[in-house]
Amino acid sequence: MAASKSIIPSTVNPDLQKERDAASFNSEEFAAWWAGGAETLKFKRGIKEYMYKEFDKDAFIHLQYMSHEQVSEFAIKNSIAVAKKLRQLQAERNPGGDDYWPTLFEAPELWGVHLAGNPFGVMYVMVVRALKSQCTPQQWEEFGKRVERFEVCATYAQTELGHGTYLRGLETRADYDRATDEFVLNTPKISSYKFWPGGLGHASNYCVVMAQLYIDNQYKGPHMFFVQVREEGSHEPRPGVHIGDIGRKLGFVGVNNGFLGLKNVRIARTRMLMKHAQVHSDGTYVKSPADVLTYFAMVSTRCIIARNCALSLAIASTISTRYSAVRRQSPINPKEPEPQIIDHVTQQLKLFPEIAAGVAFRLASDYLWDLFNVTSSGIEQGKYENLPELHSLSCALKVLCSSDATAGVERLRLACGGHGYLASTNLANIYVNITAACTYEGENTVLLLQIGRYLMKSWRAALGGATLAPTVKYLADVQQNPEFGEWTGNWENLVKAMQFAAAKKTQLAFNSLANRVANGVSEEAAANQTGIELTQAAELHGRAFLFHSFLNEITGPKSKKRSSALNRVLEQLLELYLVNETLKNLSSILRFINLTDSDLSKLQSRLETALSKIRPDAVAIVDGFDFSDRQLNSTIGSFDGNAYERIFDATLKSPMNQKSVPKSFHEHLGPFMKSNM
Amino acid sequence: MAASKSIIPSTVNPDLQKERDAASFNSEEFAAWWAGGAETLKFKRGIKEYMYKEFDKDAFIHLQYMSHEQVSEFAIKNSIAVAKKLRQLQAERNPGGDDYWPTLFEAPELWGVHLAGNPFGVMYVMVVRALKSQCTPQQWEEFGKRVERFEVCATYAQTELGHGTYLRGLETRADYDRATDEFVLNTPKISSYKFWPGGLGHASNYCVVMAQLYIDNQYKGPHMFFVQVREEGSHEPRPGVHIGDIGRKLGFVGVNNGFLGLKNVRIARTRMLMKHAQVHSDGTYVKSPADVLTYFAMVSTRCIIARNCALSLAIASTISTRYSAVRRQSPINPKEPEPQIIDHVTQQLKLFPEIAAGVAFRLASDYLWDLFNVTSSGIEQGKYENLPELHSLSCALKVLCSSDATAGVERLRLACGGHGYLASTNLANIYVNITAACTYEGENTVLLLQIGRYLMKSWRAALGGATLAPTVKYLADVQQNPEFGEWTGNWENLVKAMQFAAAKKTQLAFNSLANRVANGVSEEAAANQTGIELTQAAELHGRAFLFHSFLNEITGPKSKKRSSALNRVLEQLLELYLVNETLKNLSSILRFINLTDSDLSKLQSRLETALSKIRPDAVAIVDGFDFSDRQLNSTIGSFDGNAYERIFDATLKSPMNQKSVPKSFHEHLGPFMKSNM
Repeated sequence: MAASKSIIPSTVNPDLQKERDAASFNSEEFAAWWAGGAETLKFKRGIKEYMYKEFDKDAFIHLQYMSHEQVSEFAIKNSIAVAKKLRQLQAERNPGGDDYWPTLFEAPELWGVHLAGNPFGVMYVMVVRALKSQCTPQQWEEFGKRVERFEVCATYAQTELGHGTYLRGLETRADYDRATDEFVLNTPKISSYKFWPGGLGHASNYCVVMAQLYIDNQYKGPHMFFVQVREEGSHEPRPGVHIGDIGRKLGFVGVNNGFLGLKNVRIARTRMLMKHAQVHSDGTYVKSPADVLTYFAMVSTRCIIARNCALSLAIASTISTRYSAVRRQSPINPKEPEPQIIDHVTQQLKLFPEIAAGVAFRLASDYLWDLFNVTSSGIEQGKYENLPELHSLSCALKVLCSSDATAGVERLRLACGGHGYLASTNLANIYVNITAACTYEGENTVLLLQIGRYLMKSWRAALGGATLAPTVKYLADVQQNPEFGEWTGNWENLVKAMQFAAAKKTQLAFNSLANRVANGVSEEAAANQTGIELTQAAELHGRAFLFHSFLNEITGPKSKKRSSALNRVLEQLLELYLVNETLKNLSSILRFINLTDSDLSKLQSRLETALSKIRPDAVAIVDGFDFSDRQLNSTIGSFDGNAYERIFDATLKSPMNQKSVPKSFHEHLGPFMKSNM
Repeated sequence: MAASKSIIPSTVNPDLQKERDAASFNSEEFAAWWAGGAETLKFKRGIKEYMYKEFDKDAFIHLQYMSHEQVSEFAIKNSIAVAKKLRQLQAERNPGGDDYWPTLFEAPELWGVHLAGNPFGVMYVMVVRALKSQCTPQQWEEFGKRVERFEVCATYAQTELGHGTYLRGLETRADYDRATDEFVLNTPKISSYKFWPGGLGHASNYCVVMAQLYIDNQYKGPHMFFVQVREEGSHEPRPGVHIGDIGRKLGFVGVNNGFLGLKNVRIARTRMLMKHAQVHSDGTYVKSPADVLTYFAMVSTRCIIARNCALSLAIASTISTRYSAVRRQSPINPKEPEPQIIDHVTQQLKLFPEIAAGVAFRLASDYLWDLFNVTSSGIEQGKYENLPELHSLSCALKVLCSSDATAGVERLRLACGGHGYLASTNLANIYVNITAACTYEGENTVLLLQIGRYLMKSWRAALGGATLAPTVKYLADVQQNPEFGEWTGNWENLVKAMQFAAAKKTQLAFNSLANRVANGVSEEAAANQTGIELTQAAELHGRAFLFHSFLNEITGPKSKKRSSALNRVLEQLLELYLVNETLKNLSSILRFINLTDSDLSKLQSRLETALSKIRPDAVAIVDGFDFSDRQLNSTIGSFDGNAYERIFDATLKSPMNQKSVPKSFHEHLGPFMKSNM
């Protein structure tokens, strides 16, 4: 470790310092805006400083060298340490509140300590919430609170080996046994095993199990049951419970995803979560009233996913942008020294659109959150009519943020050349985690098809003269004005173009569907056959929303609170985002809108101009995201820009470098070479 | 392990069997065609059978749970075992030949035994070849042969921590010391350390080092030196040599990528590879004659990369297609049972274009190989004029096959939902390996810019009336006929459209470049500023080549050797590939070619028709790729289709499942839960 002190300079790389000195705006102002205010920024920085100093700064490097078992053990130990520390902070600063514990347990500020993922993440992100909304008051007192207090540890088990998205297809069943006032739970086949829940492997002793309820062999639909799976004292699996780790995955290595088989496991009747539906002791089944509120809760979950994807993308942008400012490679002019790679225009095209996208996604999730709050107050007055709109919009946001950010992170990793492939840069790790968001909480294609169905309904309603919800109102506008009108290429016009393309694709899908039905295909088969056009329309609908919310947040009334220097930078990011996405979706736009060759050349030239305008501010912008080195966990992304020294320092920590000759030489390689002489 | 026998049925999953029974063609005929003939197919199958039975069938699963050190040791032990086995086979079947050893050492047939990558891959793919082409006869006798015989172990060290692509930027230097008749090698800074060479970490005792040659402090350019880095007996690093493992990466975990620092390391003058350039003992420097042949060798390397990407994509297609035939999920009609997911049209769009792309890439690399052979005979007669064309084409093929196959593998992984994220499916592993091909042997963007420059030269030459090489001749055609002519949408017309778009993009880039220079920008800066358009033109040029070669191989004279049933299937793959790629590149096409709304609707409907026509043959097609279960190494892709049972079987092998309660419970989780009561 003595080596590490000498290798890494204590000064900032001059190439990076030069960038900071030349920025056109104050990155502190950006940081305060991005954090949601100067006070919040200060709070977040305070938390990071307090928390990170307690944890080994080299842990991320060491983690790369561990076995699956070591990582699993490390993650539990580490997350318990985080929980303890946060509770201590809560007790010190605001006893009885929850602003530190558990609020911060899964917060992005602490991602850098949950290095292998948090095995208790599902417990605090999902289970406690599910119990709060699904338990009767007695149930909450009896076991809900115990989970919240971390007296027991629980996860949420829905997905099975053979079933995911489609709830009614789940095979786990709970039969009510009137004689003993119990449910008998079974996973009858291998495909019925619960599979994937985070923390289920070896960290949980309880589990909220989604199972098909049967009373007297009569099917009552899927319900939630609170099931003890391990003994509280010994942690041994309970009788009839087959439980364990599902094994290695692409990422989330330490979160303890598990499997669960149940064989005649009996639980008290009162362990079905009965706030909405009930089973009485005589076997009477009381149906839940409308599930509209459960549905509504998912909107906020999808907002959080979108926001987390935005932040992951911003982290990756920070790493790649800083590295691109200190890496020098491939002369632009062979007579001059090699430039910072950030000066290559093709490199700028890899970096800056991702910075802009990160901002766009963050603002869209903020915007949706506001819409959510407005709708919430409506709901309290019994107004449910905007719910389908909001549900569909949150799906679109989740799909686009996860898929675009995943692709963006990978582009940013590749933009760092070979070194982007090194674990110590963290880019690979960010990728393997963010790509999972394309699949969890609603597989992206399945969600796109749901949005597509919503668009079909809206289109049909508008044809019938109905008034549409605000964010799909443009569909009705296009029905009334089927020509695009003048192409000006200004921002409002680009938003309108994306909406126009979305509406026209919706119309194409609608007509294809109608034609198929008219030709005798069943509604269901026709929907499947039109699946490609439905997902295309849904994607454009989401893009139009991203365009709209980004424009609104940057040029709307909030801009008055920012300095003109900061607004100029944000407007450049907006310009880049709108122009670049328009170019990327040009085939859809050109199909419905006539652009002249000169319009198209202008777009290309605006793209190149936007890149060159962002160039001098790029480092200051990512500085403004305000990620600490511990959050970045990257040898090439640190604030000081000493990339090569940090890579080399991390390299020396490989266990393979702790001895000069490996065992395999003596046992295999040495004897083999000798035998060939 | 007793469990594994009982869990996995010995029968084929009926859903998969049904697919095979209903296929319209014989997958054995496909397999023979794909392998390059019935005899070759038989040979390959024989090799696989012989080799795989010697190696543990569960090794891939166990590997997922190992630490970095364990994987590194495993890879060396395992690859030595493969080498021994192949040499034994060589001795048995064809003593003195090389058809088994070392030809097969890195062959795709054996990928499934090099489970963590082959630490000696670089030695046989690059070093032996480099030595053969760069050594004098004496040098070859003295040390080249020793490497070929595996008496010593060598790798090829060019990339440095601070430099990759740009050879003249390398910092490692070799100074000739006339007094001792030696070179003195140094890596003066941290950024000069050699970094990344496969097998360098702990497996090699020699190294071909690329260094800047200086004689009397006069720069002579980069040259290759054969440097001993470890003692032959003890394997200890030699004096002045700092050598080790670069640490964990996204993939290629076991290939022992290493770093190398040299401090006044002296080697005899005769250890510079002197076939082309020489340094005499008096310090006289003799320059190499034209390097045209070194350059030429890279064409074949890029063909191999393209071919390997095609095969990786075909492996991933096999896994995902079989899984999609046995997975049932999400009803198309809620009143019917859940369908095989391969019946969802959106799923077909994820699978079938990748099958088609795998075939397209394989055929393009075959086609280029033929072109290569024709050019080779020309070169022997001193005709070098087609070399720039071939170089550029091989770059384009490398770029597109690596980037498209990488994206394709990821789409196929995501098409398997959550389970695609499991290590035991192998999809994640295929991804992390194939994505590296976007960076190694010429970073893709750098190559695209080189191709762009070649297109600029060709465009200028054609303007001057010169005759262009065959594969860029279409540029001159478009100059002469600047209108596209009739859109018919047939295959030849689609090829022509892609060429037309490539030519027009080339023209746009050419004009942008000229305008910038006319406005006083230097040639070099203008090339950088036009980088985006240059890479776009280059990409379209590559796509046009892929279109052309696919069409040629399927409808050309070779089709006469195939049954009409097989030709029908191949034609459907061609149709899908051409139509889908045309739609994906529609923005470039619509910019230059007028398509009516009806033309566009027809393309969409052809896409949907192509998917539905391939649907009944999809499983039989991937069967025709003839990958054995051991090559696939996938729980969800095996020939028998018992996906869930195999996943579960692999899951049970996690070391975390070998005891019921983990250590961390007693040390951390248990006490923490108790403290909260």
